[in-house]
Amino acid sequence: MSDEVFSVEMEVRDYECDLQGIVNNSVYQNYLEHARHKFLLHKGLDFAALTAAKIHLVVLKAELEYKASLTPGDLFTVSVRMEAEGRLKWAFVQEIRKQPEGKLMLKGRITGVSLNEKGRPFQAPQVMEMLGGE
Amino acid sequence: MSDEVFSVEMEVRDYECDLQGIVNNSVYQNYLEHARHKFLLHKGLDFAALTAAKIHLVVLKAELEYKASLTPGDLFTVSVRMEAEGRLKWAFVQEIRKQPEGKLMLKGRITGVSLNEKGRPFQAPQVMEMLGGE
Amino acid sequence: MSDEVFSVEMEVRDYECDLQGIVNNSVYQNYLEHARHKFLLHKGLDFAALTAAKIHLVVLKAELEYKASLTPGDLFTVSVRMEAEGRLKWAFVQEIRKQPEGKLMLKGRITGVSLNEKGRPFQAPQVMEMLGGE
Amino acid sequence: MSDEVFSVEMEVRDYECDLQGIVNNSVYQNYLEHARHKFLLHKGLDFAALTAAKIHLVVLKAELEYKASLTPGDLFTVSVRMEAEGRLKWAFVQEIRKQPEGKLMLKGRITGVSLNEKGRPFQAPQVMEMLGGE
Repeated sequence: MSDEVFSVEMEVRDYECDLQGIVNNSVYQNYLEHARHKFLLHKGLDFAALTAAKIHLVVLKAELEYKASLTPGDLFTVSVRMEAEGRLKWAFVQEIRKQPEGKLMLKGRITGVSLNEKGRPFQAPQVMEMLGGE
Repeated sequence: MSDEVFSVEMEVRDYECDLQGIVNNSVYQNYLEHARHKFLLHKGLDFAALTAAKIHLVVLKAELEYKASLTPGDLFTVSVRMEAEGRLKWAFVQEIRKQPEGKLMLKGRITGVSLNEKGRPFQAPQVMEMLGGE
Repeated sequence: MSDEVFSVEMEVRDYECDLQGIVNNSVYQNYLEHARHKFLLHKGLDFAALTAAKIHLVVLKAELEYKASLTPGDLFTVSVRMEAEGRLKWAFVQEIRKQPEGKLMLKGRITGVSLNEKGRPFQAPQVMEMLGGE
Repeated sequence: MSDEVFSVEMEVRDYECDLQGIVNNSVYQNYLEHARHKFLLHKGLDFAALTAAKIHLVVLKAELEYKASLTPGDLFTVSVRMEAEGRLKWAFVQEIRKQPEGKLMLKGRITGVSLNEKGRPFQAPQVMEMLGGE
């Protein structure tokens, strides 16, 4: 597996901010998911097409460390690095950094698994290839 | 601090489901937040009023274990238990259970801190009282 | 078609409010949609099941009059009345009223049509029955 | 007032799609709002700063015609044109077009007004200047 770090540029939209005037905590998961799906697409995997083919990539665990709050108009990048976790699971290691200064705003680790048509964990070949080896 | 467990009943709304036909991962944080704010209100603390008074309750960390997926029309409860974590921090221990069977769908631990008007962590008296003592 | 008015009780959740401290304009469409789907369910039509059966109820037009803003913690009702509009279309006439005073906050008229598996408008028997006659 | 048309490029994110596999109806209002706020910023008006200064730009009416549905990964533009409507009100005329083909997906007309600190409609000088001219 490569050490490549994939990254997406985004911008805070006002409707994503709550009555505290900062991006709502749940919205960071939207940012992270969007970056993951762009990463998959970059690797040749279309999340919507996978879903239509009854292969479900499912999140098992999300660990999010909120370091600082994004505010209206902020520009930021969301990075994605993927690593295997055991035989069936994988983890996305992600960071959100405010730009242009690169300040770390959030660190995330999203653990997941592929489910087949019957809802059973399996080694989806498409995903294994991404994680895989020599 | 009491061992009281506070709980809110909710129902999945179709717009909360994504193209996988299940509740989107980020939406669980909405559910958890809503239950926390109802808990605070039950304790006499209004989140919007606290915010207007420049006391910001801020999430530092969210650890979410996704056990099973909620689907359209599901009824569920979101529980909230609060505990101190060191001198300044607190944690909300939360569970989402599908009803009426009580099946565990998600476990969450949300760690936070109170920030004063200058954005510095402090022992907000309103919050300390909730966590505290005799 | 009956003059029955169907109504759902809801409560503003803090995360639905934006940096103006009021419910974001887009969220009212979530409220309206949820009430429509509850109305359909009350009539025996499950939106998710219809979708799975490749019958798509699609919105053609939304006309929303914002009369006053809902704020954190507000209780409100969302009403739904359905009427035919020509041979193929139907309209949902909806109101959001703050409770307990009953103050009108939003008036909406949502026009839609049923699409078959090929994406063509058609008289979905399930919907026609709801609208229909003797 | 100029005939200038302002436009923002955006991309559908998977989490914006609902169980029908298309962008949820309410999300188009997010798109439209984001484009309006970018338009205001382009004109020198920061919506968040206006709000902090107790000037509230409030939507009175939204008329949305849904022409076709955006799906995962679609690129699109959201255009904004502003016009006066009487002495106090203004309207944003907006279109969402799928790119690169330019197909019209949604037409919107959003009517609004400026409210002062007391919640009364008034001619906010900042907004009047935008509408104004020779």
